[in-house]
Amino acid sequence: MDFSEVKAMTFDVFGTVVDWRGSIISEGENVWTAKGVNVDWPEFADSWRGGYGPSMNRVRTGELPWMNIDALHRLILDELLDRHQIAGLTEADKVHLNKVWHRLNPWPDVTSALARLRKRNIVASLSNGNVALLVNMARHGGYSWDCVLSAELAGHYKPDPEVYQSAASLLGLEPHEVIMVAAHNGDLMASKEVGFRTAFVHRPREFGPNQTTDLVPDASVDIVAKDFNDLADRLGIP
Amino acid sequence: MDFSEVKAMTFDVFGTVVDWRGSIISEGENVWTAKGVNVDWPEFADSWRGGYGPSMNRVRTGELPWMNIDALHRLILDELLDRHQIAGLTEADKVHLNKVWHRLNPWPDVTSALARLRKRNIVASLSNGNVALLVNMARHGGYSWDCVLSAELAGHYKPDPEVYQSAASLLGLEPHEVIMVAAHNGDLMASKEVGFRTAFVHRPREFGPNQTTDLVPDASVDIVAKDFNDLADRLGIP
Repeated sequence: MDFSEVKAMTFDVFGTVVDWRGSIISEGENVWTAKGVNVDWPEFADSWRGGYGPSMNRVRTGELPWMNIDALHRLILDELLDRHQIAGLTEADKVHLNKVWHRLNPWPDVTSALARLRKRNIVASLSNGNVALLVNMARHGGYSWDCVLSAELAGHYKPDPEVYQSAASLLGLEPHEVIMVAAHNGDLMASKEVGFRTAFVHRPREFGPNQTTDLVPDASVDIVAKDFNDLADRLGIP
Repeated sequence: MDFSEVKAMTFDVFGTVVDWRGSIISEGENVWTAKGVNVDWPEFADSWRGGYGPSMNRVRTGELPWMNIDALHRLILDELLDRHQIAGLTEADKVHLNKVWHRLNPWPDVTSALARLRKRNIVASLSNGNVALLVNMARHGGYSWDCVLSAELAGHYKPDPEVYQSAASLLGLEPHEVIMVAAHNGDLMASKEVGFRTAFVHRPREFGPNQTTDLVPDASVDIVAKDFNDLADRLGIP
């Protein structure tokens, strides 16, 4: 495929750019266990993330009004703290714990490779995470976006087509001038429906050592890469 | 005033970050005169910019539907080309000329000082320019925002309060945690109404050698600075 028309790359963030699971386990075990959140952190991280799809769907179907991911993460956190009978946290503690999602660490290839990709193309997030979360996370991780794009700006969550359409429109581009980069086939297929190019990046440990999903890219994706540096190589970006 | 609560700085762009007048005159004289746009470029730049406030007000009052600045710039450009009886440009030429507003050069202090300010605080644009324009302009000028915020995201133009309110909300901050930086008292006063801190930066040549407006900061602004490096100095940011 000819990528000469491409002017921007939009990136899924949770799992594709950042290792949400490893980051939450690490902060949990190092900080929160001692503060009384004495749980099995891998299981806690998985449950927290596990509540995300269903709660977003309650927004997508109209059962809940529009809420950003900070608010959805907090709903799920409150349920989890209840379920684990953890009662000793102050409100300030809970706010801070909920913001662990603003402090997720990038995969090791991200920071240098994004700078590389950015030399040729606009690089933008395109995440269900809210703008503040994405801004804080990039500062935490030490990488830069040309533009922070978020489901929050469309008032729709991925994979609704409005998210991709609004991203292309805000960048002043046609969908075929944008590559969606993700470790998830569902995100890529939804962006392709709207006319985006697609790049699958392997993140086989996103869900831990026993991951079963998104280990194999869909046959329809335009590029498959091992990581972001390999993606730059395949696009011929030095 | 104590600025220890400040977490983000939002920047007006046209005139505050970039020298729109000098940039348009330069590209006009060096590129467009030879292509048949044989006009007095300082006068042309002033007229183009002069149409901006009135056309935005037609959107603000509801006389025109929401249009982004690219579209408003194009409306004004078409009127100016008509008035000067310039008929030789193709549609592609006009699109490219209209995008001179994406290729404005920053004032000399901007690139290094923004990197400095960004070490301590979130730095974000907060401009009536549309997102694509702001993204392309930052890449052209070689500086980086943590976040591109625009009137386009609020569906309102400054000085409507919705623009400032939505900016603070998207950053997940209270208004008093944000400093608005601008070379224009009107912008600063409107942000202050919403609860922002305010920093006036002198740009006494924005409108050319005979500028008469915004030469003196309003007495109510919180900080006055000669340029962005002076602003960093005054905030104690090394």
